[in-house]
This record gives sequence, structure tokens and C-alpha cells, in this order.
Amino acid sequence: MTLPSAADDLIMGLTHVVDLPSLTAAAGAPLGADDIAALVGEAARFTREQMAPGWQEADRHGAHYANGTVTTPPHYKALMKAWIESGWQGVAAPESIGGQGLPHAVWIAVTELASAADMAFFLGPVLTAGAIDLLLGHGTQDQQDRFLPKLVTGEWNGTMCLTEPQAGSDLAALRTRAEPLGDGRYALHGQKIYITWGEHDTTENILHLVLARLPGAAEGSRGISLFAAPKVLPDGTRNALRCGGIERKMGIHASPTCIMLFEGAEAELVGEPGRGLNAMFAMMNAARLAVGVQGVAAGARALELAEKYAADRTQSGRPIARHADVARMLAEMRATTLAARLLTLEAAAALDRHHLLGDEAGQTRLALLTPIVKAWCTDRGVENASLGIQVHGGMGFVEDAGAAQVLRDVRITPIYEGTNGIQAIDLLVRKVAKDGGAAVRGLLAEVAAADPCLAAAAARLGTATTLMLEAQARDPDAAQGLATAYLDACGWVLGGWMLVRAAAAAPDRAALAGFYLARLLPRAEARCLEIEHGALVPIPSLL
Amino acid sequence: MTLPSAADDLIMGLTHVVDLPSLTAAAGAPLGADDIAALVGEAARFTREQMAPGWQEADRHGAHYANGTVTTPPHYKALMKAWIESGWQGVAAPESIGGQGLPHAVWIAVTELASAADMAFFLGPVLTAGAIDLLLGHGTQDQQDRFLPKLVTGEWNGTMCLTEPQAGSDLAALRTRAEPLGDGRYALHGQKIYITWGEHDTTENILHLVLARLPGAAEGSRGISLFAAPKVLPDGTRNALRCGGIERKMGIHASPTCIMLFEGAEAELVGEPGRGLNAMFAMMNAARLAVGVQGVAAGARALELAEKYAADRTQSGRPIARHADVARMLAEMRATTLAARLLTLEAAAALDRHHLLGDEAGQTRLALLTPIVKAWCTDRGVENASLGIQVHGGMGFVEDAGAAQVLRDVRITPIYEGTNGIQAIDLLVRKVAKDGGAAVRGLLAEVAAADPCLAAAAARLGTATTLMLEAQARDPDAAQGLATAYLDACGWVLGGWMLVRAAAAAPDRAALAGFYLARLLPRAEARCLEIEHGALVPIPSLL
Repeated sequence: MTLPSAADDLIMGLTHVVDLPSLTAAAGAPLGADDIAALVGEAARFTREQMAPGWQEADRHGAHYANGTVTTPPHYKALMKAWIESGWQGVAAPESIGGQGLPHAVWIAVTELASAADMAFFLGPVLTAGAIDLLLGHGTQDQQDRFLPKLVTGEWNGTMCLTEPQAGSDLAALRTRAEPLGDGRYALHGQKIYITWGEHDTTENILHLVLARLPGAAEGSRGISLFAAPKVLPDGTRNALRCGGIERKMGIHASPTCIMLFEGAEAELVGEPGRGLNAMFAMMNAARLAVGVQGVAAGARALELAEKYAADRTQSGRPIARHADVARMLAEMRATTLAARLLTLEAAAALDRHHLLGDEAGQTRLALLTPIVKAWCTDRGVENASLGIQVHGGMGFVEDAGAAQVLRDVRITPIYEGTNGIQAIDLLVRKVAKDGGAAVRGLLAEVAAADPCLAAAAARLGTATTLMLEAQARDPDAAQGLATAYLDACGWVLGGWMLVRAAAAAPDRAALAGFYLARLLPRAEARCLEIEHGALVPIPSLL
Repeated sequence: MTLPSAADDLIMGLTHVVDLPSLTAAAGAPLGADDIAALVGEAARFTREQMAPGWQEADRHGAHYANGTVTTPPHYKALMKAWIESGWQGVAAPESIGGQGLPHAVWIAVTELASAADMAFFLGPVLTAGAIDLLLGHGTQDQQDRFLPKLVTGEWNGTMCLTEPQAGSDLAALRTRAEPLGDGRYALHGQKIYITWGEHDTTENILHLVLARLPGAAEGSRGISLFAAPKVLPDGTRNALRCGGIERKMGIHASPTCIMLFEGAEAELVGEPGRGLNAMFAMMNAARLAVGVQGVAAGARALELAEKYAADRTQSGRPIARHADVARMLAEMRATTLAARLLTLEAAAALDRHHLLGDEAGQTRLALLTPIVKAWCTDRGVENASLGIQVHGGMGFVEDAGAAQVLRDVRITPIYEGTNGIQAIDLLVRKVAKDGGAAVRGLLAEVAAADPCLAAAAARLGTATTLMLEAQARDPDAAQGLATAYLDACGWVLGGWMLVRAAAAAPDRAALAGFYLARLLPRAEARCLEIEHGALVPIPSLL
């Protein structure tokens, strides 16, 4: 029996679970089942042929820094050229600026396949996609005309310059300054850290999107504005910004993580003064969804490697895939990867409903799902990468097999674009408490209607929601100490919902859904119990 | 408030939880509270001063192979010399062969502190300790006289040569041959892989303990005998065995993982022909306990790094240790690390009750606890290493901080010395099903008597035990597909038991025990639910 590939599941999910054909038909630009299959199939072919083969070599070579320049693995120049020629960078960008105008859900599918093939490489294009969204939402027509054509092809890449040494999760503490030059331009002064693909040798230019403060700006987050500063100025000279070094990291070795020094770099304001964080949040939300997808992708790559190894490796007279505990690990990996995959598509479809149909409920649903997708899907990615190692036994710890690299690479995803702890607090405070739990209760009603087993889990999660709202009103610290448990419970319940919908649409996924409901959904119950008990027991070190 | 160090908790656990003073007094060699504090304090000083400082440098340097020789980090020669001079290698060995004759529980404490300080280095001494145990149990007086004095000082190290390319978890498939030379000696022919510290430059000799088949031996595991083959022969010449290469691994870079080639190596039989696996199991059981301790040690190192970082790093006007979700992560790490630590001491004390007092119940308890200690404590080690990274945020992914190394190093522990899946099956088949659940029910009765909350968890686990026994009788594959869930449930319940006992002995640990019972013990309930549901739902890929 051939199990469905990631592409098979993406096609099934886009077509039958989130029903992109109906959604696009309603928007007047119908995308049929055949179109979806062709698009995903082509993305799978491109990533499998062009990106996946060099993945381990890229890790071994890594990125190297010397005298302000960064050298990436030798084959990355040709790969970037192939990526630009493929046209995938602009798949979800408007046709007016050279894109293909397809739904964001299609871009999410491309993101998963490409991240699974070579996560380190694809971090560049992911951030470029965020930069495109940001300029579409907040750039002037003139800025869009100058920047977007190059970003949409991928000839330039975009970066997000947020973090500074003293300002990680707390962006209000940013210090980078923007001095007006009198002609509408600004000079940036400051140091940014953890800048992904901030400097490299694969594109002709880099557009840095930088948070900084104008003179006399307010303290805190309201004093932060957003600026665009290219590496190479229109006259061909180098801007006054440079890479001061790159980090030696656990994984994604081929993705340069840069210290960026802005030494009077020429920049222009994007959006309104003091509204920089607001503009950046648009980019961050898209990036958070993409990071959740990276978690799915790691699970998918781990599963592919583990299933192959388990089929080939024989012990005690049969392939280890037929040993019960190995089969259990493979089933867990397959079930949670599919659940997480479908959850990312559900979030992307909500975004598309908002963008294509102007559906405000889509916007609300997306806002609710984004922190869950980011945190739960990356936690599952780490877990599945670790299970993938375990399936390999001793070979899993040896770098040749690739399983170890999946874990080393994916381990960043629960951290960047807002740690998973930040996501849990975002879910609790800005998504659930803000409307008194209305949006989450609406979602849980849909979940409960799908299946009796899910109805019980949704009811218990409803009780946990009440407890969380009470805790947040009474003692925000206590509530936030339970926020991760709450997000995790939401993730397990929603994952079950996605699999039940998949089983309804594609009966050959029913056994996997049954396995999930029986064996993994109890984890939601443990988290609800944790909230029920934990609301009464303080965290020792906060006493 | 200063939180207890690992050494503080070890002293508390040895003295008040497993009550080593009473146990040793009953054995006529009393070790008082002051003795325990002095021993553990001295081990903590040695490992902190001698081993911990070079830990990251050892990882960066790694082990290197060229032309049959292996070069370890430069400072390892001096460190091995200091280790030998310290006398710690023989702490639990009989005084008659140069040891100190102290309880095994003291060695377990040393193992934790040393593994936390530099796991890669300490793998050598851990295996040497196993070789000592094996020769004490199965060597002739002559063999003991020739080998033990050098092993007990640490001047020689011992290895376990089990795995072959085609024989990983399935040792019955071993092919290495032992040809009689006619004078009581044998010539070994074969290839072994994953041999920890199989070749290196820090001791004058290496004693390999090798599983191989005699001519005409039975197929399967009953045809396997055990042999001892030194790297350097008594006349000073090199034996016909060599290292053929080392693995490039995810972690424990400084511990050489060797391919060993036996090319007619001169060897002697240890124990009876065909009883090699039996003899090796003694070494493996001690090693399994030690690997569980490595999981504890990783959690302890991760916690130490994370607590320091969280105290120093300020965001939004306060140390991140005071942010609720970070405090939650630190509390989880502290609670499960202490629970796991005390569980390793409980197992070691059972071993001591058997060794020192001839208590058969101690032997039964040890056999039951060994797979749980090995698997649950290493799973917690991996989880805590990952939480430790998460507490650091972006810095956690940067190698400089050390948090990433803890995860890279500890990730091998759920794999070697029998994967955690093998442990789960061992627990189910050889420990629980073998006596119809008598030993585990006896243990659960003790657990239930300790605390009402634990009583409820123990009752549910008792039900799960019945289900597992029924499943094992009806459909062993189905049962083994649930074995990991069962072991994990046992671990969470026993961890709670250890913390409740710690809280009774040391009231300042009561808040941590309360946190564990409220927030982490529900994970046992999820696992019991998984068994209740999962007994009815097959694993999809085994359909």
C-alpha cells in the first residue's frame, strides 16, 4: 500500500477540506480541482528536483562570514536563479505587479513543500513574501512601483529587521534611530540582530524593512516607525549598512543569521510615523503562519525519511515498520503532520475568504488561528523530528541519515517570529479575552458538530476557556502561566477536527483520524485538567 | 531565594528519601548524613572545577579519526589523569580490588554530576563501571585479578561491543566469530559498530567486551558467548583489532563512536559458552540505569543554564524568570528533573538493598524500575533540554549559550542501551506480564498510600495494567503498540510519588510537588485514556 505523499495530502486538503474550488468560484476566479492538483504537483516536482537534493550539503557547508560579506553554499546561486525563473515567489501576489494572483492557501502549500526540501534556503523567499505583503498594505504607490517588481520575481529579497540585543520579545525597547535628512529621506543608526538572510551572495539586492525611532518619538511601542533601506542604492553604490557577523547555530546552518549594523544607512519611511509596529505586524502575522508551516514541513520530511528507513531496515525477520512500537511512532507522525498541515490550510483559507470575498469572519478566524498554527504546528514539528530520529535508532543520531538535521533545523521554529510562549499569551489576551471568548466558542461549536468524540473534547475545552477568562480577569500572571496549556489543548482539539473533516472527504484517511481521536486527543484532556487544577496552584518560583 | 542545586537535591534524596543511612547501617557499614553530604559535595566540586569548564570546547573540537587512531580534545588527557587520581571510578567497587566499597546509589550521584558536567567525556568511565560489574559477576578469579585493578582506577577503560551493522535491537542476528586457538584463547573476527570510546588517546589500554559466536554455536541468542580482548596485549604488542572510523553525530562530539574491526584479535572467554547475552545483560542493566541518569543530568544542566539566563535577562522591566510562561517552563524543568533524579536513586537503592542486604524484593523492584528509569528519565531529559533552549529564546539556538549542546548531546539517550521502545516492551513483557502484574501492583499500592491525588492516579494506572495484561495475552502486537504509553504513564505516576516523598522529607520542596501533581500528573491520565481507547483502535499501518 502506498501512503499519501505530502503533495497528495495538500491537494486533498485544499480541494476537499478547505474547499478552495468553491471559495475561488465565489470570488469570481475559479480554481478547480485539476488546477490545484497541477499547481501542487508542479511545486512538488520543483522542490523535489531542485531543492531537496542539496539539503544536507547546504547544512555541511553552512554560511560563512568574512569582512562584511557572507558566502552561502556554492549551489545556492543556481538554486536562487532557478527559484526566480520558476515564478513561485509571486504565486499569491497580484497580477498587476507581476504575480499570479492565486490564493494565499496555494502559497502555503508551496511553503510547506519548499521548507521540507530545504528550510534554510527557503527562509529567504518566505521573508520576501512577507515584505511584499507589507509593502502592498503600507507602502505608497511610488514605493510599490519601485520595490515590488523586483521582490515579486525574487530578484531582490526582503528582510525583517526587528530584534536588537536588548529588545527581543519586548520590541518597545528598540533603540535604532532614524534621523531626517531633510529631503524626505532618513539616516538609520543602530544594531539589529538575528536578521535572517540579512546579507548573502545570491540576489542582486536586499531590501531591509527596519523598525526605528524618529527624533522625539514617544517611548515604548508607539514611538516606533518603519523604514525601508536597500543594500544597494539606486545609483549602484552600497548603502551605509553592513553585516557585522553571523551566528553559529544549532541548525539552518545555510541560512545566514546576521548582525546588521546601520551606520547612517539611507532609508525611507513606510507607512505613518509611529505606526511601524502596526505595519510590521502584518508582515509578522504572515510570517507566523509560514513558521507554523515550517513545523509541518519538518514533520513531513521527518516522516518521509523515517518511513523509508523503517521499510528498508529489517530486524527479527521483518521490516521495523511492522514492529508495533515503530508503527505507532510512524502513525503519530503521520497523524499530527496531517492534522497540522490541514490546520495551516484552514488558516490560509480564512485569510483568502477575507482577501477575496471581504469576509470579516475570515479575518477573525485567521486572527484566532494564527497563534495556534504558529505554536502548535511548530511544537508538533519538533516532536515529529525527534520521533523521526527515534525510528532510525542509532542511525538517527548519525548526521548522514538526515533525521538529526530535521530536528536541528526545526528547533528554531518555536522561537522565532514570537516565541510559542508569546503566541500563547497572544491567544489568551488578544484573541480570547478581547471578545470574551466569543470567537473561540463559535469555533468550538463547529468542532463539536463534527463528531461525538470531538464534542466531548470541545465541551471540556469550553470549560477551560471559562476558567482561563476568569483567571485572566482575576490574576493575569496566573492566567498567563496557564496560557501554553490552553493553546496546546486548542491545538489538539482543532487537529482532531481537521482529521475528522479529512476522513469525511477522503475515507482512506479515516483510520488515521480514528487513531488520532483514540490515542492523541487525550492530550487535550490532560491540558484541560492542567488548567482546572493549575488555576488553584501557583507556579513555585512566582510565589 | 537560592534554589537547591543538583548536589543539594542529591544529598536530600540519598539521605531522606531513599534513606541510605538506614540501609547502610543495616548492612553493617553505616554511611551517615554527613558522609553523604561530604561525598556528594566533593563530587560536585570535582566535576564543577575539572569537567564542566571544558565542555563546550570539547564539543567544538570533537573527536577525530585518522589511520586507525582517534584524537580526542586536547584537554581530555589531563582530565582523564585527574579522573584517575580522584578515585571516583572505584567508588562502588569492592575494597578488595582497590575500590571504596560504597553503595551504588553514591555512584549514581557521581554519574549524574559528571554527566551534567561533560557527558561526552563521562561516557568512558560509565562503560568502565559496567565492565567492572560484569567481570565481578562473570569473570574468573584470574580474570578479575588481571583486569579489575586497572579498570577500578580508570587507567584502562572498558567497552561494550554488541551492535553489528545487521544487528541493532536484534542481537540474535550477531555474526562476529570466535575461533579457538587451542590454548584456551580465541581469535575474534567481525565488525562492531557504535562502540563508545572504542578507540582514543586518553588511557594506556582498552578492554573490549565482545559478543561473538563459537564454531558450531546455536543460531539466535543462545549461540552467543562473551569475550574479553584488550587493545594492547600483556607483552606490549597491539592486538589484531582496530578502529575503522568514527561517526559524525548530532551531539556528544567528543565521545568517539567507533567502528571496530576484529581481525583475528586475541581474546579470552568470559563466563560460559552460549551465556554471553546473559553476562552482557548485567552490564546492560547497569548501563541502562546510567543512561537514565544521563537524562536527569541533561535536565540539570539545562535547568542551571536556563535559570541563570532567565535571572540575568530583562524584558519589559523584569527578569524573564518573573514572566509567567518562563517561570512555568523553569518549574516544569525543575519538577521533572527532581522527580527523575529521585527515581534513579530509588532504583539504585533497590540495587543496594539486594547487594548489601541480599533482599530479593530489591532485585524485583530494580528489574521493574530499570526500563522506566531508562526511558522516562531520558524522555524528560530531551524535553527539558528543549525547554532550556526555549527559555533562552533566540540565544538558545545559538551554540555559544550551551543550551543547544545539551539537546544535541542528550538526544542519543532514548536510543542507546536499548531504545525506549525496547524498554517499553521489556517493561510490559518481561517485568509486568511475567508475574501477572504482581510487582507493579505492589509498587502501585505503595504509591497510592502516599497521597490521595496519587491514589487516584495509581488506581487508573492499575486499570491500565489490567488492560495491558489482557491485550498482551490476546494480541501481543496490539499490546506492544501501547507499551510506550504504559511506560510513560508509570513514569509520570512514579515521578509524582518521588516528589511527594521529597516534600514529606524536605518541606521546601512541597510547592514543587504540588505544581507537579496539579499540572504534570494529568499526563499520566492522558496515557491511561490512550490505553483505554487505543486497545480498541489498531495502528493504521499495522492493519
